[in-house]
Amino acid sequence: MPATAAASSIDFWFEFASSYSYVAASVIDARAAAAGVAVRWRPFLLGPIFARQGWRDSPFNINPVKGRYMWRDVERRCAALGVPFARPTRFPQHTLLAARVATVAGDEGWGPAFGLAAFRANFAEGCDLGERATVAALIAALGRDPHAVLARAEGEDVKARLRDETARAEALGVFGAPTFTVGDELFWGGDRIDDALDRARGL
Amino acid sequence: MPATAAASSIDFWFEFASSYSYVAASVIDARAAAAGVAVRWRPFLLGPIFARQGWRDSPFNINPVKGRYMWRDVERRCAALGVPFARPTRFPQHTLLAARVATVAGDEGWGPAFGLAAFRANFAEGCDLGERATVAALIAALGRDPHAVLARAEGEDVKARLRDETARAEALGVFGAPTFTVGDELFWGGDRIDDALDRARGL
Repeated sequence: MPATAAASSIDFWFEFASSYSYVAASVIDARAAAAGVAVRWRPFLLGPIFARQGWRDSPFNINPVKGRYMWRDVERRCAALGVPFARPTRFPQHTLLAARVATVAGDEGWGPAFGLAAFRANFAEGCDLGERATVAALIAALGRDPHAVLARAEGEDVKARLRDETARAEALGVFGAPTFTVGDELFWGGDRIDDALDRARGL
Repeated sequence: MPATAAASSIDFWFEFASSYSYVAASVIDARAAAAGVAVRWRPFLLGPIFARQGWRDSPFNINPVKGRYMWRDVERRCAALGVPFARPTRFPQHTLLAARVATVAGDEGWGPAFGLAAFRANFAEGCDLGERATVAALIAALGRDPHAVLARAEGEDVKARLRDETARAEALGVFGAPTFTVGDELFWGGDRIDDALDRARGL
């Protein structure tokens, strides 16, 4: 593999409450692998960023017309991609604990596996990520010890790291999810995965 | 041409103040022609729809972080597509008169030509569509009589038609531009042109 290809990578900024992040999470690794690009899964919290925009809820709830479109759109995109989907009864879900666990998982090399499992729980399996038992079950299903992982996830260093990552996303100009970054270059939305991959490959 | 191809068409809902509508307007006819799909250019006004969402300005001005992304994104998309682009000094521009002229032009078979010219004036040529002289010059450059066209554009029937079209867009669930519709099915954003064309072709 040429050195440039080995060096190329994108950062995938995601929020577990974000429906379009789910769609992107379902396809990003395969698409990136086909392009010879590495993916860094970077959980962050959209809540604080939305709050600075004056939003205390998902923009898809604040604007029900846009919300109606989003659910129809996510449904048909999932159908087209062969990705399982069931509209969650609760939206958005409380994703703080899941994002902390994803931070731990990222450190330990099981970030994408946990990420995808958590997204599926939210957007395909009718679970509520806001419930501790849901997150614990996801950890156990991946062959990890929920008690130990949750203890690490709620340690001060992981809490601080997730806050720092959210601040880093904001500093990069992230205002929604999913966002892909290649250096300082941002690509917002799952429709732009290929543009981000092209950028990472220097195309 | 098979009957199904002849019957397939999409509606292209656009607003002259919308930067992403400009990008879409620059590519839609060629892309649709390649797909064997007819395009109906449908000018409407985003202002009244945004006002109902509580916005009195472009969301890209209300949220400067999102705005900064948008300008960078439009610039690089135009570069990739070979579409001329120069960031307008005034954004958004007052597009009521241009939209009324586009309504007349649509009736008379020169809708896309005027539409593209007006978009270019705004987003590539440093003109202000809010100035009557700009709109008149665009009409003249297309070999039409500005005085006669502007008189028709400001007739009560055309004013009412544009209001009706805006109401129709809103009834369809349009909340931004560009939006493509195929029957009741909406596709929001220029990234979704191919999805809309596929839908029109029954794919």
